[in-house]
Amino acid sequence: MLDPDPHCPAALAGAEILIGEPADLDALLALSARCEVITFDHERIPLAHLRTLEAGGATLRPRPATAELAFDKSVARRRWSAAGIPIPEFTEVGGVPDIEEFARTAGWPVVVKSARGGYDGRGVAVVDDPADAHRAVEMLGPGLIAERFVRFDSELSVLIARGPDGEMATYPPVSTVQEDGMCVEVIYPASIGDAVRTRAIDVARDVAADADLVGIMAVEMFVVGDRVLVNEVATRPHNTGHLTIEANETSQFEQHLRCVLDLPLGTTSARSAVAVMRNVVGDADGSDPTLGLDRALAVDGAHVHLYGKQPRPGRKLGHVTTLGDDIEMVRATAVQAVDALHACAVNVGANA
Amino acid sequence: MLDPDPHCPAALAGAEILIGEPADLDALLALSARCEVITFDHERIPLAHLRTLEAGGATLRPRPATAELAFDKSVARRRWSAAGIPIPEFTEVGGVPDIEEFARTAGWPVVVKSARGGYDGRGVAVVDDPADAHRAVEMLGPGLIAERFVRFDSELSVLIARGPDGEMATYPPVSTVQEDGMCVEVIYPASIGDAVRTRAIDVARDVAADADLVGIMAVEMFVVGDRVLVNEVATRPHNTGHLTIEANETSQFEQHLRCVLDLPLGTTSARSAVAVMRNVVGDADGSDPTLGLDRALAVDGAHVHLYGKQPRPGRKLGHVTTLGDDIEMVRATAVQAVDALHACAVNVGANA
Repeated sequence: MLDPDPHCPAALAGAEILIGEPADLDALLALSARCEVITFDHERIPLAHLRTLEAGGATLRPRPATAELAFDKSVARRRWSAAGIPIPEFTEVGGVPDIEEFARTAGWPVVVKSARGGYDGRGVAVVDDPADAHRAVEMLGPGLIAERFVRFDSELSVLIARGPDGEMATYPPVSTVQEDGMCVEVIYPASIGDAVRTRAIDVARDVAADADLVGIMAVEMFVVGDRVLVNEVATRPHNTGHLTIEANETSQFEQHLRCVLDLPLGTTSARSAVAVMRNVVGDADGSDPTLGLDRALAVDGAHVHLYGKQPRPGRKLGHVTTLGDDIEMVRATAVQAVDALHACAVNVGANA
Repeated sequence: MLDPDPHCPAALAGAEILIGEPADLDALLALSARCEVITFDHERIPLAHLRTLEAGGATLRPRPATAELAFDKSVARRRWSAAGIPIPEFTEVGGVPDIEEFARTAGWPVVVKSARGGYDGRGVAVVDDPADAHRAVEMLGPGLIAERFVRFDSELSVLIARGPDGEMATYPPVSTVQEDGMCVEVIYPASIGDAVRTRAIDVARDVAADADLVGIMAVEMFVVGDRVLVNEVATRPHNTGHLTIEANETSQFEQHLRCVLDLPLGTTSARSAVAVMRNVVGDADGSDPTLGLDRALAVDGAHVHLYGKQPRPGRKLGHVTTLGDDIEMVRATAVQAVDALHACAVNVGANA
């Protein structure tokens, strides 16, 4: 595992750590020299480096051309548009006039996004008029796209796995709840009808096949009436799939490794009627949720995961998954456990 | 983690390994100096060493007095007898005459067991007459017990967890199937009636409370009609509890750590109607089951666990757990996956 921090979460799990930055080509080459196959779980590796590794004969799963769909929203939209994947109307933006031109047909507000590097709500602005657009372009810098503002009914995510031989396995769709652009809650099953469910899975399969995916991919979609529109993808295990650890026969992590190692794919079926995942996000004082672990573990049925990360405000530090039959009860249990982690942290801070 | 092998399975899981033998007191003291609490997952540590650590102020969970029930069958039977725990009729054996004397009331055959060190069928002999008894005493050496041969209907195991404050959590009983004294299969739910189920759980609670247990314990029992008789205990996560990883809300491993770390106990309820665990045991040619991993993973619904141990004939190298609603189907799937691991290993051996 290549990581700049010898005490990174992967080290806790027993990975051998090669210390280095993901943007350092020499470090990537050193890693590559020791690996039969390489995968990666974030988007902070320069695509050009991934292409250099591949050109040098390394086996990358997913391939750089697949990862580019997650790394570059502009490239993704062009490719999806060409492949007939349903997406919100968009345009590439050189400057404010492009946004004004786009708004003339799509109407205000317009969503302006950085094509690269945005996540958890960063790199996105919703603009209401030309003055707003001007501020957004100043703030976000170059490399932007503009998108029609979609008044969606809900958001969902479909996890899909694909092996080197093209074998695919889809997970049942989940509803995702965002706050300030960050996923805070994932609910299985997604609150959609059968027609939308079938449509969402079909679209995810189209995206995966078109991408020549090897590995796991989260396809995030907007639901608008009986239609789905692809918003973005992650070509790695994803926050919206964490509940698969307890809620599905094969977790997204095991499934990703099965794909990457060319092993048969595992069953994806759900193991309970209802599952809820809530993120544990660093609070404003940067207090440590592990201090509330004993209270959270006292919540019956709460599966508490903390990642061993340094607490920072707004950072995803862990998650809680709960299972059962009744959505309101399952959700309440998850909320209770996450609150326990936060409440205790605040108390300790106040007493210190 | 104290282990003589720096590449032990615990190292694969990220444990910091202090290299040393579990029978080396200096190594144990060095470990103890670095730990707030110590637990252990086998019976090859001299009890005297555990007592020395405890006398020196170390916190051991379980305590040596608890572990002794697993380490010494003779001590266990005396203590259970005094506490009114139901066990097969037994006697301590100084020599062949004690066995003959015991057989006069209990009848032949008699089961002769080493009080210490036996496991997976080793250290046990079933003797039919005085000549047999003589051979068993010669073979097994000193420190023996003799027990009435119990014609049981079935065998079961009850996992029970107990925290430092005495809080207990029991797992639903499972049936165990032994071949040549080694557990080969575990089935949830145990094929017993409600009365026996209740009785088995009550007995397990009595054993745990009497033992002042802290941690997890497997209580293995014989079922005879509507009675249960305690056969032996393990004061650690146990082979008969491996299926809890997938089959129960809280796995035996997480539960043991919750106890040892004085965290609230987790829910033990089953997550599927039926679960089966089958061991992957090293075959006669010592071939490597990982060579069959791809075939085993192709078996739908098989949860395959391989421990990264060196293959040796008769050694437990892994296990497979399967879940579902129909016992025959769930069992067949487990058999199929274990066969795949073995078949492939044999093929490779034949081609090599």
